[in-house]
Amino acid sequence: MEGEPLSALCSPALVVDVDKVKRNAQRMIERWQKLGVQLRPHMKTHKTLECADIMTGGSRRCIVVSTLAEACFFADSGFDDILYAYCLPFDKVERCAALSERLELFQVLLDHRDALEQLRKRPLRDGRKWHVWLKVDCGNGRAGILHSEPEALRLAEAIAETDGVELTGVYAHCGNTYNCRGAEQIQAVAQETTHFTLQFMEKLKAVGVTCKSSIGSTPSCSHPVGDMAQLSEVHPGNYVFYDVQQSIIGSCSLEDVAVRVLTRVIGHCPHRNQLLVDCGWCGLSLDGAGKLPTGYAVIEGHPNLKLSSMTQEHGRVEPISGPLDYSKYPLGSLLTLIPYHACATAMMHPVYYIHSEGRLLGKWTPTRGW
Amino acid sequence: MEGEPLSALCSPALVVDVDKVKRNAQRMIERWQKLGVQLRPHMKTHKTLECADIMTGGSRRCIVVSTLAEACFFADSGFDDILYAYCLPFDKVERCAALSERLELFQVLLDHRDALEQLRKRPLRDGRKWHVWLKVDCGNGRAGILHSEPEALRLAEAIAETDGVELTGVYAHCGNTYNCRGAEQIQAVAQETTHFTLQFMEKLKAVGVTCKSSIGSTPSCSHPVGDMAQLSEVHPGNYVFYDVQQSIIGSCSLEDVAVRVLTRVIGHCPHRNQLLVDCGWCGLSLDGAGKLPTGYAVIEGHPNLKLSSMTQEHGRVEPISGPLDYSKYPLGSLLTLIPYHACATAMMHPVYYIHSEGRLLGKWTPTRGW
Repeated sequence: MEGEPLSALCSPALVVDVDKVKRNAQRMIERWQKLGVQLRPHMKTHKTLECADIMTGGSRRCIVVSTLAEACFFADSGFDDILYAYCLPFDKVERCAALSERLELFQVLLDHRDALEQLRKRPLRDGRKWHVWLKVDCGNGRAGILHSEPEALRLAEAIAETDGVELTGVYAHCGNTYNCRGAEQIQAVAQETTHFTLQFMEKLKAVGVTCKSSIGSTPSCSHPVGDMAQLSEVHPGNYVFYDVQQSIIGSCSLEDVAVRVLTRVIGHCPHRNQLLVDCGWCGLSLDGAGKLPTGYAVIEGHPNLKLSSMTQEHGRVEPISGPLDYSKYPLGSLLTLIPYHACATAMMHPVYYIHSEGRLLGKWTPTRGW
Repeated sequence: MEGEPLSALCSPALVVDVDKVKRNAQRMIERWQKLGVQLRPHMKTHKTLECADIMTGGSRRCIVVSTLAEACFFADSGFDDILYAYCLPFDKVERCAALSERLELFQVLLDHRDALEQLRKRPLRDGRKWHVWLKVDCGNGRAGILHSEPEALRLAEAIAETDGVELTGVYAHCGNTYNCRGAEQIQAVAQETTHFTLQFMEKLKAVGVTCKSSIGSTPSCSHPVGDMAQLSEVHPGNYVFYDVQQSIIGSCSLEDVAVRVLTRVIGHCPHRNQLLVDCGWCGLSLDGAGKLPTGYAVIEGHPNLKLSSMTQEHGRVEPISGPLDYSKYPLGSLLTLIPYHACATAMMHPVYYIHSEGRLLGKWTPTRGW
């Protein structure tokens, strides 16, 4: 396969431009080096060892994961300093304890006193401590205790004071940047999240507690505000691939997007003015429904085409206006889809095909499950 | 794990009630035995050897697959008489040829003269013939040549007349039953598809061509009309699991649905009147968006709860009306989701956990990719 063109692949296939991956990763590394802030890249988008190597600059240290399956997968390959940034699931305490006892630095996260109690009830062996981040919600509206609630401060103090437990840091995810359009709006949310986080750190300091701070999302970390230099860490993830969604938000240009789904024309339906392609939701996911004028994806080089609907293994493609010229799309011809949401699309593929300038280099195999 | 209750599983987890699977499969087998029609079950929903065994009554013969990865997976485990019911993809002709030369009976499908040309250009070894089904569209509006087009008949004749190729059958998928509500509407579509298919068979007979006929979809095969007894085969698939969508269409009752996603409460958000659960689209898929009053799934035993939104690993649950009583949903407590679309949900899981009456029996591992 090595050295062959992308057209040698059976479709649908997720193809990754490794040069763009390296460029996206390097830009993020340099951006945060300059600001003096530790970059802790998130692995959830790709879940592969090779991409993790690139994102960590080869150090294999200082990563975030969204599942314990990822944590184990990376730990098994020599990665360490892993933050499982997911509010401690009570069914996985024992597995978290095992990782904490095995790695140099495995870190968990919580936003509720009941979770702290779970850790207290399972002391680690060999005098080790649980390394705990407090998850705060600074406006995102998903997980985390509201930064403004008095209980947030009390919970941080309780973590710091619990035997066998260490308050490692305060963690906020500014996923609300996903509603932004353009750098200015992104920076407004980044500023707000940073402000609330730093304000919380001040309150902590006032009661004698010091620890790290971390915020992140690909939009905010692609357009940081100056105050983010006061944070200890940031934790973006999607940026290594980027996608159409990120280009609409304003995190990147469409040029920066490193992933595509290759698909082929498998049907002509002139009575419906449609083509069929061999990529359904099984190869793309249903993410992005209703969000783009071009349907579920951008069809590269064909701005008048729309991926209007999908079933498991079929996609229906039609022109945005006018009749289809079928002579341009013979059966078997290739089309290239730029995914709306790279995290969701990558998840559908058991293997990614890696290329440089359209020449295949090999495969990356992601981990799956929980 | 064997013998333990479902609550021993980490979540999210896809759990399969093997008794319901066997019952659903047995009912379908008996229904078509009585009608004297060959059941050729579709594997696309589950993609596992164990479930294929149950659906074929242990014969490991006479199945349909949606991907060539499935075809190889089943072939490698001794399955045979496999129909790859997907309009011949030109990038996979060589792989199809290899299966045709290796199995007793591997069958392909096409709806275009260019595909026939691909087969003609790749004659099979040892005097073997390509076994080809003609895909016709009897109103579904996806793949297949329109049954009413003169070219449909001409293409069937061309297949029958091509050296090294045999016209095995005429295949129609009545996916338009998915728009039905209730047995009466399902049967109207089943009748129409059957009528057009049998009419096409008559036209073929008139020009001296005889072959098999097959139609299918879970709704039509769950509520067959009498004329379907004149078909050679039927090819439903989803029925082995069923799902909320099928219960709304009227293919089954909610009682018949054999799959669930176990999830746990991981967050309390009283300021938003919400719970967080550990099942996002990574564990459920985004299929069914906007279709149910209860959101992306039915939450078993909690008719007032709605799975209102999901991100990769988080689900937001809120009451349809009134305030949440958090004391009923402590952190760590289990909720059970009945999927809207079992095919889409199963696809998200690298392993399925099998149980009988809530006691774990083991795991099934599906194949993935293309």
